[in-house]
Amino acid sequence: MIRSSQILKKALARSFATKTFVPEVRIVEVGPRDGLQNEPKILPSEVKISLIDQLSETGLKTIEATSFVSPKWVPQMGDNAEVLQGIRKVEGISYPVLTPNLKGFEGALKAGAQEVAVFGAASDAFSQKNVNCTAAESIERFRPVLEAAKKHNIKVRGYVSTVVGCPYQGPIKPSDVVKVAGALYDMGCYEISLGDTIGVGTPGTMRKMLDEVVRAVPPEKLAVHCHDTYGQALANILTSLDYGISVVDSSVSGLGGCPYARGASGNAATEDVVYMLHGMGVTTGIDLEKLIYVGRFICQKLGRVSESKVNRAWKGSRE
Amino acid sequence: MIRSSQILKKALARSFATKTFVPEVRIVEVGPRDGLQNEPKILPSEVKISLIDQLSETGLKTIEATSFVSPKWVPQMGDNAEVLQGIRKVEGISYPVLTPNLKGFEGALKAGAQEVAVFGAASDAFSQKNVNCTAAESIERFRPVLEAAKKHNIKVRGYVSTVVGCPYQGPIKPSDVVKVAGALYDMGCYEISLGDTIGVGTPGTMRKMLDEVVRAVPPEKLAVHCHDTYGQALANILTSLDYGISVVDSSVSGLGGCPYARGASGNAATEDVVYMLHGMGVTTGIDLEKLIYVGRFICQKLGRVSESKVNRAWKGSRE
Repeated sequence: MIRSSQILKKALARSFATKTFVPEVRIVEVGPRDGLQNEPKILPSEVKISLIDQLSETGLKTIEATSFVSPKWVPQMGDNAEVLQGIRKVEGISYPVLTPNLKGFEGALKAGAQEVAVFGAASDAFSQKNVNCTAAESIERFRPVLEAAKKHNIKVRGYVSTVVGCPYQGPIKPSDVVKVAGALYDMGCYEISLGDTIGVGTPGTMRKMLDEVVRAVPPEKLAVHCHDTYGQALANILTSLDYGISVVDSSVSGLGGCPYARGASGNAATEDVVYMLHGMGVTTGIDLEKLIYVGRFICQKLGRVSESKVNRAWKGSRE
Repeated sequence: MIRSSQILKKALARSFATKTFVPEVRIVEVGPRDGLQNEPKILPSEVKISLIDQLSETGLKTIEATSFVSPKWVPQMGDNAEVLQGIRKVEGISYPVLTPNLKGFEGALKAGAQEVAVFGAASDAFSQKNVNCTAAESIERFRPVLEAAKKHNIKVRGYVSTVVGCPYQGPIKPSDVVKVAGALYDMGCYEISLGDTIGVGTPGTMRKMLDEVVRAVPPEKLAVHCHDTYGQALANILTSLDYGISVVDSSVSGLGGCPYARGASGNAATEDVVYMLHGMGVTTGIDLEKLIYVGRFICQKLGRVSESKVNRAWKGSRE
């Protein structure tokens, strides 16, 4: 049966070379924060609390709970303290909250946060537009947050947005991502999440970016945060696994998006990511069917269709 | 800046090992056949002809035009001869048509077909349900078609459906795919298209299947045909490129699906595939923006939203 043995050998060599997937991936569920903050409908606090409590039952180990920003800017997160205090804290699960500045950090601390996240951009234009300073300057503003967090023994996660493309600036140089990711890592962030905020990345541009970034931050300290605006999220996540990255941000049923990016659709849907990973033999610890029913719960509350294709196709045991 | 050099080396080795993409991919546009045959709305022949003529202007080199099946079974393709005769045949572009049996082949020949395709399944249960015989028996029925095609110097493409999963049988053994793909190749098909008909595959199950199939059919004679039911199509296509496969079936704006598979969504959207490939530096010869406008044309005629995320996000030069 063997034909064209040289081509075959080449193909098999390629195949085996990429066959070793990371054994385990930790999903960072960002639906309650990055998801809900970008939904037009504002939900009652008890629905948000119920969403997080249900997510705590699926096997997820990290659930981003809310954001301590001014309600003037993000009214969807105006009940941050109530939500963070209202959820059932399950042992072994982390519930980070976004804190853009020291004021936010203090609010989070008061409400009992054990982990926070700060948010920088690789793009100067994006940074100027949103926080009226350069990318480098915006990172410096996080220094007091990192210092306060250290004092209180609070873990800090660092986000870098627009890692391959920016709505104002276009393509982003990998060296710009290295600068911001490296600075946040050096400042003490325990993990750096690389965000393709407007979802323009492909396995090609992701590779060019990651080839550089893994020189500044070790891959086991990196996460990817892919939006599915151009349908590329799963292919991009798959690509990042080749680099030994084993933390993936996603949002149940693909909730949310980026309020600053025109036509941006939501995050990669957690259901679709988990389906892919399980099909590859990668462990996530997540009960996919439970997760699917949580996705249906929140979509019903929002009056929207699930952006997860797995969720839409799934015929579950409860039907 | 270098930290954790061992992990870094491992990551880079992985990265470089998979960095060589195939330089060029030929897209087989299946929208006018696999797409329209699964749309509830039946379009007038002149719209189908216009669709194909517009597709001929995008740089595509293969456009599956129609199907010579009984209109009793597939009323959407009842005007096959009219469509095939009505389209402008552009030099260098192939317009294959599906011919399930000798009668279909004769009709196609009479209408001027230069290339045909036959359609087998890896799953016995799927084959029994659809053509009332085993997978092996169904392949044998194509022998007269292949013989007649040879006599008339007509190229024959072979489809294998349900290559990773079957709606009736569940997971499919890679060895069953090898049998059917190998038989079609041995019978004289110049290319074998491996179809994940119900879109259940992942990079994991695709790899298991391809690891076996490339032992029977050389990768440069293989194509992949991925449906996006579970959102995995692009990740699966990306995976197949690792094997040296460089022919990809897709459908403009993700038209179509599988009439036999419950809840099956359409093929991978050509726009999304092309966007990914171009982002990887892989040549397709296709003008993406032209393709996007063809997708909008046909979706408007069908009264449906494009299933291509690239198409929905694209702000083109004509706006």
